[in-house]
Amino acid sequence: MADGTATRGRRGGGGAARRAERTSTKVDQAGTITRNIPNYEVLDEAALTIIETNADIVLEEIGVAFPENEAALELWRAAGAEIRGDRVHIPKGLARELCKTAPESFTQVARNPARNVTIGGRDLVLAPVYGPPFVRDAEGRRYATMADFEKFVKLGHMSKWLHHSGGTVCEPTDVAVNKRHYDMLLAHMTLTDKPFMGSVTEPSRAQDSVEMCDILFDDGDGTGLNGRTAMISLININSPLTFDSIMMGALEVYARANQACIISPFIVGGAMAPVSVMGTLTQVMAEVMAGVAYSQLVKPGAPAVFGAFVTSIDMNSGAPTFGTPEAAQITYGAGQLARRLNLPFRSAGSFNGSKLPDAQAAYETANSLNAGLLAGVNFMLHSCGWLEGGLVADFEKFVMDADQLGILHKMAKGIAVDPESQAMDALREVGPGGHFLGCAHTQANFKTAFWKSDLLDYKPFETWADEGSRDTRALAAARVDKLLGDYVEPVLDPAKRAALLEYVAQKKASMPDAFM
Amino acid sequence: MADGTATRGRRGGGGAARRAERTSTKVDQAGTITRNIPNYEVLDEAALTIIETNADIVLEEIGVAFPENEAALELWRAAGAEIRGDRVHIPKGLARELCKTAPESFTQVARNPARNVTIGGRDLVLAPVYGPPFVRDAEGRRYATMADFEKFVKLGHMSKWLHHSGGTVCEPTDVAVNKRHYDMLLAHMTLTDKPFMGSVTEPSRAQDSVEMCDILFDDGDGTGLNGRTAMISLININSPLTFDSIMMGALEVYARANQACIISPFIVGGAMAPVSVMGTLTQVMAEVMAGVAYSQLVKPGAPAVFGAFVTSIDMNSGAPTFGTPEAAQITYGAGQLARRLNLPFRSAGSFNGSKLPDAQAAYETANSLNAGLLAGVNFMLHSCGWLEGGLVADFEKFVMDADQLGILHKMAKGIAVDPESQAMDALREVGPGGHFLGCAHTQANFKTAFWKSDLLDYKPFETWADEGSRDTRALAAARVDKLLGDYVEPVLDPAKRAALLEYVAQKKASMPDAFM
Repeated sequence: MADGTATRGRRGGGGAARRAERTSTKVDQAGTITRNIPNYEVLDEAALTIIETNADIVLEEIGVAFPENEAALELWRAAGAEIRGDRVHIPKGLARELCKTAPESFTQVARNPARNVTIGGRDLVLAPVYGPPFVRDAEGRRYATMADFEKFVKLGHMSKWLHHSGGTVCEPTDVAVNKRHYDMLLAHMTLTDKPFMGSVTEPSRAQDSVEMCDILFDDGDGTGLNGRTAMISLININSPLTFDSIMMGALEVYARANQACIISPFIVGGAMAPVSVMGTLTQVMAEVMAGVAYSQLVKPGAPAVFGAFVTSIDMNSGAPTFGTPEAAQITYGAGQLARRLNLPFRSAGSFNGSKLPDAQAAYETANSLNAGLLAGVNFMLHSCGWLEGGLVADFEKFVMDADQLGILHKMAKGIAVDPESQAMDALREVGPGGHFLGCAHTQANFKTAFWKSDLLDYKPFETWADEGSRDTRALAAARVDKLLGDYVEPVLDPAKRAALLEYVAQKKASMPDAFM
Repeated sequence: MADGTATRGRRGGGGAARRAERTSTKVDQAGTITRNIPNYEVLDEAALTIIETNADIVLEEIGVAFPENEAALELWRAAGAEIRGDRVHIPKGLARELCKTAPESFTQVARNPARNVTIGGRDLVLAPVYGPPFVRDAEGRRYATMADFEKFVKLGHMSKWLHHSGGTVCEPTDVAVNKRHYDMLLAHMTLTDKPFMGSVTEPSRAQDSVEMCDILFDDGDGTGLNGRTAMISLININSPLTFDSIMMGALEVYARANQACIISPFIVGGAMAPVSVMGTLTQVMAEVMAGVAYSQLVKPGAPAVFGAFVTSIDMNSGAPTFGTPEAAQITYGAGQLARRLNLPFRSAGSFNGSKLPDAQAAYETANSLNAGLLAGVNFMLHSCGWLEGGLVADFEKFVMDADQLGILHKMAKGIAVDPESQAMDALREVGPGGHFLGCAHTQANFKTAFWKSDLLDYKPFETWADEGSRDTRALAAARVDKLLGDYVEPVLDPAKRAALLEYVAQKKASMPDAFM
């Protein structure tokens, strides 16, 4: 477990320094999660084989579409697929075979090496919400701005349990569409030292992302990234079975630069996939295999992740629904399929359909977070801050969810079984009718025995009432203010900062603003 | 699946009847839950063996206390235990051996046979909150009354996913302590036809409970219960390792009458048990084995349940905490231990420490409900309505939680793998770039494909805002009113009702009010 801490304020010698340290705010970081617990598996061997067989039938007989992408069709043809129009028919077994060159796990580097993450294996990496055009706070709901984006990056930096700064934490709608990726990347590169995601909205913006990483990660010899994976980016599949040329263009840029791509079907069940769990899993399997296989055609060995963003639908209103049993079943099943492909797995998150960070939001979020942990998710995008079906990034919910992520950290450790944990001395010391509060075993272990929320209320009713009868949202609003108040920007080499600013200024000056 | 329905209003013939039926409210009941999914197991064979070995050491070397209960000590002595003072030292293996006569599962009958439940095996029975002295609704928090109690029983009757009416859903503090059990039992017997729990606060009140069941369940031949199990009752252990003589007196009454007892350690970890998970599980195992063994000494074959009410503690304030990772770990582990004893398992519930039915309440509740499902819980007391560490039964949270219980029903069914569920026809029909909303498979399956909340909000933002921007609690308050407005008392034989009222009137007249 990496356990880096930064302290607020400058260090000095003697008593003043010690006083300063006592009053300074530590940015505690909990380190990585490596599961020491079993995965939960709902599908038996027969069901898994049915899905794999059916996915192969889908790829061969129905095929997948790569519209407006002649180069992709040519790569597929050369690999042995049959091309009809823009439809790629992949012979049984070929996609699976091509997936084998993708790594089972990989390291994503951060500019602070203590924040490097492993994606795959038994690790779980937690990243914040991605994509909402709106934000909400105690004042209400409004279009997101770059100022909101920076606040979220700072909150992510300060969040003990969060490993990753994410990508489009919210859409900065006050910046031109063709320029916002520069500002977003600058924020991730300067306001935090956690790892982050690249732009996917145009292949050229993916290229910009790589070039900015070449500046940030250069070791002083001008070789830039030099093969290291410094970004993981979200490549959504246009489900069902369609691989958009813009997304594929971004994938091509990233794969060639050895940057990681999450190949992610984007499915509201019943609309973009069949209404059944088995049918959806079959489609997910087919889509991910085709996407990962394509990344390996572009560059064998490029890191790729088995993604599954799947919700169900309210058949009355057509609205997507979250935290549902079907979503959990698909998450568990997709995890099994990903492991059989030896690929890292992305799924689950702080999903909910509520308009407010209320009980609905929390039930639905907790259902998804719990399923994600036990399903063996390796990269959990949207792990905090999601609201209103992903339309809104909510400041209070961000810190509420980020606090709950501590539970995943603790659960993943499993149960210690050593003699000290067996506590037979305590049982003997206390005996029938006694209490354990003061016994030696409790004194020795109480500080680390129980996970503790940094947010939720455990006070006696009277104290709570005297303090204003605050609900979770009010407590969270105070925590947002506290974390932003305590925020200190991590040190960055001034020359690199200047070079990044210069790169962005030149790029921005070279193009007119575009708003779509 | 039993799927009984009752309709509001009287049935007649012709068009008027059809109109009445269209406008009447059905009391949908979802039927029982039999899991078709695996249990989640966190402990390996080595850890389980350590716990079982250590629990035997606790029983033999430390022993368990049966204070002020000479008859119990005599039973234990005769069974081969060593008695020192009020301490029972149970030789290794004896408690486990005695537990073997307890049934692996049993049927608890309800006065409506369609509401009978199986407790044990792969079944999960859901019962409401138990014990709070306070209630809360939109108006605030106050001492509970009998009127509140009756409202909760009606809400439980109307709750589709709830199998059981529970016991002390709240404490009716406006009724004398020595008489409230009569009113509570009358409410469970008359206002619902779901199964319920017996009184445990005095052995005489357990006896009253049995006698009232003899009236309610008599088949007209005067033999009363005639050996059927019609109640399950909560026998808390005074942890650590102490078996209170009043609770044991109630257990003795129930065991002799073949009524079921939940033998339940009541543990705030760090106070009533060691601060470690392994230590707590060891104590739980020892306590449950001693309690169940004792029930079998009283009457071999009496139904008994392995209970585990376990929370962690906030070591700063001493407050119990809920929905924590340690509580989940203990729930998973205790489930494994219960199955190795071939006993039904009671644990988990809508536990939380929040003062309001807000996000904290929902996160913590969802964490516990999810763990309870996967841990293999057979009887989930407190499955809805719990607030503020069990001090409060909350009306809004009751219906919020009761709605979430639908997720457990759906999850437990597992994933259908038949050809229709594989949906290959749908995948072929729709193909790349299409959508599934109108395809034949969706039309045939959409009504049952996805679990649907009867409470939560899925509406578009604008509709939601127009309707008053209601949070979950406000939606729940409206649902409480709706369910109570739709409530219809299930039919009860007037002679039985009269006999029950007569029994209670005579009993009440025979004793002065007592308020402790």
